[in-house]
Amino acid sequence: MAKWPVSPPMQRALELARAAAAVGEVPVGAVVTRGGAVVGEGHNLTRSTSDPTAHAEIVAIRRAAEALGDERLTGCDLHVTLEPCAMCAGAIAHARIARLYYGAPDPKGGAVDHGARVFAHPQCLHVPQVYPGMGEGEAAQLLRGFFAERR
Amino acid sequence: MAKWPVSPPMQRALELARAAAAVGEVPVGAVVTRGGAVVGEGHNLTRSTSDPTAHAEIVAIRRAAEALGDERLTGCDLHVTLEPCAMCAGAIAHARIARLYYGAPDPKGGAVDHGARVFAHPQCLHVPQVYPGMGEGEAAQLLRGFFAERR
Repeated sequence: MAKWPVSPPMQRALELARAAAAVGEVPVGAVVTRGGAVVGEGHNLTRSTSDPTAHAEIVAIRRAAEALGDERLTGCDLHVTLEPCAMCAGAIAHARIARLYYGAPDPKGGAVDHGARVFAHPQCLHVPQVYPGMGEGEAAQLLRGFFAERR
Repeated sequence: MAKWPVSPPMQRALELARAAAAVGEVPVGAVVTRGGAVVGEGHNLTRSTSDPTAHAEIVAIRRAAEALGDERLTGCDLHVTLEPCAMCAGAIAHARIARLYYGAPDPKGGAVDHGARVFAHPQCLHVPQVYPGMGEGEAAQLLRGFFAERR
């Protein structure tokens, strides 16, 4: 159940997650915005590109940084359908993402509010504001459906 | 001071770190090997490519996965001159790297033996064997020299 209305960027991230499922990729979508405009987006591509780093967040951040010509996405927000893992949380810190909105929590692979809790250590060089739960219901259902079909 | 002789892959990683410094990138180098043969390598490219994810480890892992056509680098070892950050430690887990050799410890940005300690959580999906300290002296000196010049 959504804790608040699903914003247009998160709606787009959910659309990307559905597109991922349709091509056999784990259904997670991510969108980077600045001042409300989309500057980068993507979904998981690990299977089709044989790239273990091609999570939705990494794809969206790389595209946004390329589009803006800057490795620092200062003032940008990231909207992703699943709680980021340690790799993606680290990338979010490096990219200086201002606000992180994520849909479903991931007690197993998540590293924001579970496991390594990457942003909770004093060494973390940049900590975004974190807003969990937007679009959680659909985000989680997409993942459950995807893995249920494959078992 | 090296704790043991610097292996040829770590020597190559140090060479890549020196090459990074020569082009104005943070001097960290990484090499992925399988059965002793190099299957992917790289150095930091964040500045020249405006890509916040282009750490040496990510570059080397992506190239190795591309070369092998597999997102899982099962049986591969990673040799990197600096303790990996949370992003890179997460990528190492996703890539199923068997052994991680790193040079200099990084109490500030490292997330293997410091900070988030990504591999120390029960949720971590794959934990490599970790060997710190190989080539530590030169690796640390390269970084100190690079940042001293820029202050």
